Amino acid sequence: MRPFRDLIPFDRALSVLMENVYEIGEWERVPLEDAAGRVLAEDVIAQIDVPPFDRAAEDGYALIAEDTFGAGQYDPKEFRVIGKINTGEYKDIEVKHGTAVEVATGALIPKGANAVVRVEDTEREGDNLKVYRAVHPGFDIAPRGEDIKSGDTVLRKGEYLTPAKVGAIAALGMPSVKVFRKPQVGILPTGDELVRPGEKITPGKIYDVNSYTLISVVKENGGIPKVYPYVRDTIEDIEAKLDLALENDIVVFSGGSSVGERDLLIDVVSRRGNVLFHGVQIKPGKPTWAAIVDGKLVLGMPGFPTSCLNDAYQFLIPALRKMAHLPARMERVVRAKMARRITSTLGRAQFFTVRLEGDLAYPAYKTSGAITSLANSDGYIIIPATVDLVEKGEEVEVHLWR
Amino acid sequence: MRPFRDLIPFDRALSVLMENVYEIGEWERVPLEDAAGRVLAEDVIAQIDVPPFDRAAEDGYALIAEDTFGAGQYDPKEFRVIGKINTGEYKDIEVKHGTAVEVATGALIPKGANAVVRVEDTEREGDNLKVYRAVHPGFDIAPRGEDIKSGDTVLRKGEYLTPAKVGAIAALGMPSVKVFRKPQVGILPTGDELVRPGEKITPGKIYDVNSYTLISVVKENGGIPKVYPYVRDTIEDIEAKLDLALENDIVVFSGGSSVGERDLLIDVVSRRGNVLFHGVQIKPGKPTWAAIVDGKLVLGMPGFPTSCLNDAYQFLIPALRKMAHLPARMERVVRAKMARRITSTLGRAQFFTVRLEGDLAYPAYKTSGAITSLANSDGYIIIPATVDLVEKGEEVEVHLWR
Repeated sequence: MRPFRDLIPFDRALSVLMENVYEIGEWERVPLEDAAGRVLAEDVIAQIDVPPFDRAAEDGYALIAEDTFGAGQYDPKEFRVIGKINTGEYKDIEVKHGTAVEVATGALIPKGANAVVRVEDTEREGDNLKVYRAVHPGFDIAPRGEDIKSGDTVLRKGEYLTPAKVGAIAALGMPSVKVFRKPQVGILPTGDELVRPGEKITPGKIYDVNSYTLISVVKENGGIPKVYPYVRDTIEDIEAKLDLALENDIVVFSGGSSVGERDLLIDVVSRRGNVLFHGVQIKPGKPTWAAIVDGKLVLGMPGFPTSCLNDAYQFLIPALRKMAHLPARMERVVRAKMARRITSTLGRAQFFTVRLEGDLAYPAYKTSGAITSLANSDGYIIIPATVDLVEKGEEVEVHLWR
Repeated sequence: MRPFRDLIPFDRALSVLMENVYEIGEWERVPLEDAAGRVLAEDVIAQIDVPPFDRAAEDGYALIAEDTFGAGQYDPKEFRVIGKINTGEYKDIEVKHGTAVEVATGALIPKGANAVVRVEDTEREGDNLKVYRAVHPGFDIAPRGEDIKSGDTVLRKGEYLTPAKVGAIAALGMPSVKVFRKPQVGILPTGDELVRPGEKITPGKIYDVNSYTLISVVKENGGIPKVYPYVRDTIEDIEAKLDLALENDIVVFSGGSSVGERDLLIDVVSRRGNVLFHGVQIKPGKPTWAAIVDGKLVLGMPGFPTSCLNDAYQFLIPALRKMAHLPARMERVVRAKMARRITSTLGRAQFFTVRLEGDLAYPAYKTSGAITSLANSDGYIIIPATVDLVEKGEEVEVHLWR
């Protein structure tokens, strides 16, 4: 048996990994309808003013502000209405002293006018308009470029596109935008025991879980998953499948890294590239490894579903999101009290899954082989490598899955 | 001018709205690859045991535990190795007293064996095996059904599918699962001034923003958006487009509800259905209305981009997520100090957008017509209807957009 020669602390493993993750440089153009949740690969510079013309901020009458000076509730000023401009309409009318043009909210302010009096401050009979309030120049006009000026850098390369930012791009009249392409993640489930859900299972075989948890994690974190046919436990098949999967930005092996077969995978990967680490002081996930092969990040995760998925949260998600230029995964942490005493392994940080009931955290962890350790949990607590016991009633921080 | 007759408080508007939102009953079947983020429309009941057979939990030798009793570091017990079972393999071997079968982690435990000794506790020469450690029955065996038993209800209708839960379904061998169908949201941008991004703009026209912010919000919150051609400001067109859009689960009008045209929309909707509220004590968003027409929820939002998007966060998202059986939107709230003094309108709760720099919150709000009020903000503070001033340095809670 070959020991894990260099079991490294979790923090060290993560920082070595992240130092070796490059950010995707290539971009693609997406229509605005699909832009939310993506990351800008260009500065967005306004080519127009927003609003593109002086607009009425309220329903009312566009006129010359100076003509209203001195108006009051008992002392109206009189105007002649010379036309009406609806929202969206263009009319070549000019306002002169003593005249006014009816305007709807958002309508173009006609030439000559420099203010809007609101409809509730007026009284109209036919074309005669009484204005009961004085307004200053600019009143209730949203001037051209008030929001955005042509030439302004409205959004910057690297910004995450929220619905509001998508709206800002729409306001500029751009129907599409350059975003970084999504990283592709090649998933290589390893093991002669795996059977696809929906197929018949025979003695000795189990259903493949990791492909589906990894697909889900990759999609939720801005990547495109691609699952390859199951890797058989032979050097030839490992090499052939690795070669195939190197068309992706990240390659993830799951399984085949327990003691028995670990040597095959690590031997192939060591020969083909540079192993960053092999063996991490965490539970579950001790046999985890990472390597760079042909410039691509290759991760080796245990086959046990809970170990594999925990590895995905601890290593794959940070790497994938960095590559995709995405902000770190939003994680909610709540405080709770342990409902029972739990023991841990000294020397390995343990990610221990718990179920919450009120402010009590119940152990959800069964074994690293048990998918229900995760499926029935609300989150996990981290028990440091130097701690072997968490007392009943002790306060813990629960990292929620969502 | 017709006043808003019944301006109601925000909390009241929201609760009236939510009481009138039904949860989608129809389901669809999706492959597991697409199941994460969806909501189960059926209980998931195990049809098999997981694991489906007794498995080796470690690499080692399957044998009869009782044969190892008395073994120790200086006093090995001897066995004859009668075969090997690899992971994924089925072999019809039977272990009898004094014999052992080599097994890999995850391999089938052969008939007769009731324990596994780890490879590191053994020494082998040819078919002769020395075992240096006594193990009890069941040691390092993951028994059939340890994780999930056939007949167990593993997940329940209404559960939100995380990657772990998708994994649990995979473990049961199910290639697809029933989930609630996504609600469809018909989007009806209203106004003669609207032009689609990418088309030429002429004086008096502006680019349509709300379609794109609403599409983004709907997609991010489990709905399917469908945008209809722009609604013109005529009763005939409003009726025609409303009829079209009632094929959806929710209909959202944006624009056309400012004083000038509001009557048209509200008149049509009042005639066709039941108005839940019209006018809310919030800023922005005062002219917001909600109605039930032909059993469908119809929302009326202001045309100003910031008002419309704020309405989407305050009204549409809660309604849509409830309809989709999704848990409430995860919102992060951080504490900050106001960097400047801001004033608000008494009698209306204000959603005031801010930009964070360290622990200081700077006003991002310009006008409700300004898309940059939102696009350049990190979140918003809620200034209650009874407060007209937030002092510089005052502590506020910032609701982050993400």
